[in-house]
Amino acid sequence: MGETASVAGLEGVVAAETRLSEVNGRSGEFTIAGFPVEELAPRATFEETVYLLWHARLPDAEELAGFREALAVRRGLPEGIVRLLRSAAVAGVPAMDALRAAVGALGVEETDGAEDARSIVARFPTIVAAYRRLLDGEEPVDPDPGLGHAANYLYMLWGERPQEGAVRALETYMNTVVDHGMNASTFAARVIVSTGSDMVSAVAGAVGALKGPLHGGAPGPALEVVFEVGSAGRAEEVLRSKLERGERLMGFGHRIYKVRDPRADVLAGAAEVLYGSGGDRGIYELALEVERTALRLLEEYKPGRNLKTNVEFYTALLLHGLGLPAGLFTPTFATARVAGWTAHCMEQRKLGRLIRPQSVYVGERGKKWVPLEKR
Amino acid sequence: MGETASVAGLEGVVAAETRLSEVNGRSGEFTIAGFPVEELAPRATFEETVYLLWHARLPDAEELAGFREALAVRRGLPEGIVRLLRSAAVAGVPAMDALRAAVGALGVEETDGAEDARSIVARFPTIVAAYRRLLDGEEPVDPDPGLGHAANYLYMLWGERPQEGAVRALETYMNTVVDHGMNASTFAARVIVSTGSDMVSAVAGAVGALKGPLHGGAPGPALEVVFEVGSAGRAEEVLRSKLERGERLMGFGHRIYKVRDPRADVLAGAAEVLYGSGGDRGIYELALEVERTALRLLEEYKPGRNLKTNVEFYTALLLHGLGLPAGLFTPTFATARVAGWTAHCMEQRKLGRLIRPQSVYVGERGKKWVPLEKR
Repeated sequence: MGETASVAGLEGVVAAETRLSEVNGRSGEFTIAGFPVEELAPRATFEETVYLLWHARLPDAEELAGFREALAVRRGLPEGIVRLLRSAAVAGVPAMDALRAAVGALGVEETDGAEDARSIVARFPTIVAAYRRLLDGEEPVDPDPGLGHAANYLYMLWGERPQEGAVRALETYMNTVVDHGMNASTFAARVIVSTGSDMVSAVAGAVGALKGPLHGGAPGPALEVVFEVGSAGRAEEVLRSKLERGERLMGFGHRIYKVRDPRADVLAGAAEVLYGSGGDRGIYELALEVERTALRLLEEYKPGRNLKTNVEFYTALLLHGLGLPAGLFTPTFATARVAGWTAHCMEQRKLGRLIRPQSVYVGERGKKWVPLEKR
Repeated sequence: MGETASVAGLEGVVAAETRLSEVNGRSGEFTIAGFPVEELAPRATFEETVYLLWHARLPDAEELAGFREALAVRRGLPEGIVRLLRSAAVAGVPAMDALRAAVGALGVEETDGAEDARSIVARFPTIVAAYRRLLDGEEPVDPDPGLGHAANYLYMLWGERPQEGAVRALETYMNTVVDHGMNASTFAARVIVSTGSDMVSAVAGAVGALKGPLHGGAPGPALEVVFEVGSAGRAEEVLRSKLERGERLMGFGHRIYKVRDPRADVLAGAAEVLYGSGGDRGIYELALEVERTALRLLEEYKPGRNLKTNVEFYTALLLHGLGLPAGLFTPTFATARVAGWTAHCMEQRKLGRLIRPQSVYVGERGKKWVPLEKR
């Protein structure tokens, strides 16, 4: 590539080699640190997955116990962070803004925390859950040292110890979305840490990138379609009229995966188990009907495009089944992805190399100063 | 470029077209929105330069008055930001961490501020000055609505209205470093805002990138050499022994500029005027002697490398002449560069395109799950 060839959006440009995950859109395979997603996600606790990403292997029993303990002792929030969240809740700012601000303040409230990935990962669910409760006018719930990472998140949200099935469903989700190649938030984290800056700075930047609507992965809208359909009998009518108007069906199709997104299968399986043991069974049945109808109509309206159910559709369904409101979908996603961000920071750091592309100037040159009174 | 060619650090890859600034390292020219740096920087107020970057032309008298007023009414800090800075000062965190945390909290403390570049730029000097005073055990000084942007920074730092010469020197510095092509912090801001995220998120990410030691532009070490030399008679001895030990002489040479950095000339001129009207005259004379000696010795030890005095050397000298301690050099740099970051955000937004490169997976595949008890 010549020095001045411009690549819009850096599409197709390889910015890094990684051992963390591989997205193979053509074959529909997704690998997390050596494991096919369907092999790892339904079996591992979230702690095991984080350990795997950071250490390139699964922990043994002693290592896992130590790691769980290391997260447990770091899970509580410094007083200043809670104060910041209270102030944000009074102003009613969106959860992702509150999360970004709280993460950015972590290095200030706890000065030794800026380089400790465990501190950052441990605090994410605590921040998100505390902020949700504050928004609802309730006091934050302190973490329970006897519970694991995912279980604590649900516990801190609702103040009740969650059922085992719910924890398993949440861990499967978190494992599935813990990393996904070089997405924009991960890239932002790598650019920031490539300057030699600290991990809190990198993760705060990544949260800022993740909240952008073009980032992708936002599961909220997929479920809105299901609610809009409302009852199975209306699926065809609602979806057909959307397609007639040229609207995109949220929850179907993916920029990269040309065949079925393997993460969708994993989450579909988890949703089936979760709703099988209770929950909003009506929504689950309706979602399946919406999916069947959507796939049939997409084949009719966009033949050969091979549009499949994507990860957002089942994410929305699964998180809804866990009792999470749509406003918590993206923050919950961040709570998982932060493990990937920190792993990428560690990987980028080992390279010790600044990420710094070029720009091409397309403006004027050689303009002369004109004093204010002559403008 | 093929889909899988990897470019370490994205060096030589063009990530964007820009009308904001052009760094021509071969000819030693630096253009800011059409103007050669030496034409613009010594003449413009900082407000005029910011307006130029945001609107691609200099303001007329009425527009400038309106812009000054718009910054003035946004310069004060929300109570929550001051509280955060107090807490940071108690912990004694570095100024750049406090700045990043305060910026990240801006969108939380003032919910309509996240999209207002004027709010962000207006607050930078206020945050930096307030934090410096808090670190020194003094109360922040409220901005003076009768003073311009640069003058207010000095006023809020020391509580006294600054002399005209000091303001001119500071504005020349701020104009000179307001933007510089696609540096790492600017790139981080563009990546974040390319997702459709808000400007506070992008600028917080940029501050996080700027604080990294590999970012470049940190002027502190350049002056340390001058202090280490201590008196003109020791310049040759100290510098020669550094070169004999293979050490780099901070303040000389630049990654991009192969001839003299045009910004160094502008700042050298500003330093001459500033120290001519008073200040630490001894340090100025000493610095010039260190420069002369360094250039002579560099020619002797690294013949043909053509290493020249860089922008950091004169930045350090100029900011020292303004009474700023070295701990304020990088935050002061950020206070100028934030105008460039916001301008790049606006430019990136108009493209409406996600910046998202790829990664290449170099790890294992197809690993099988092993239960905990068998590891």
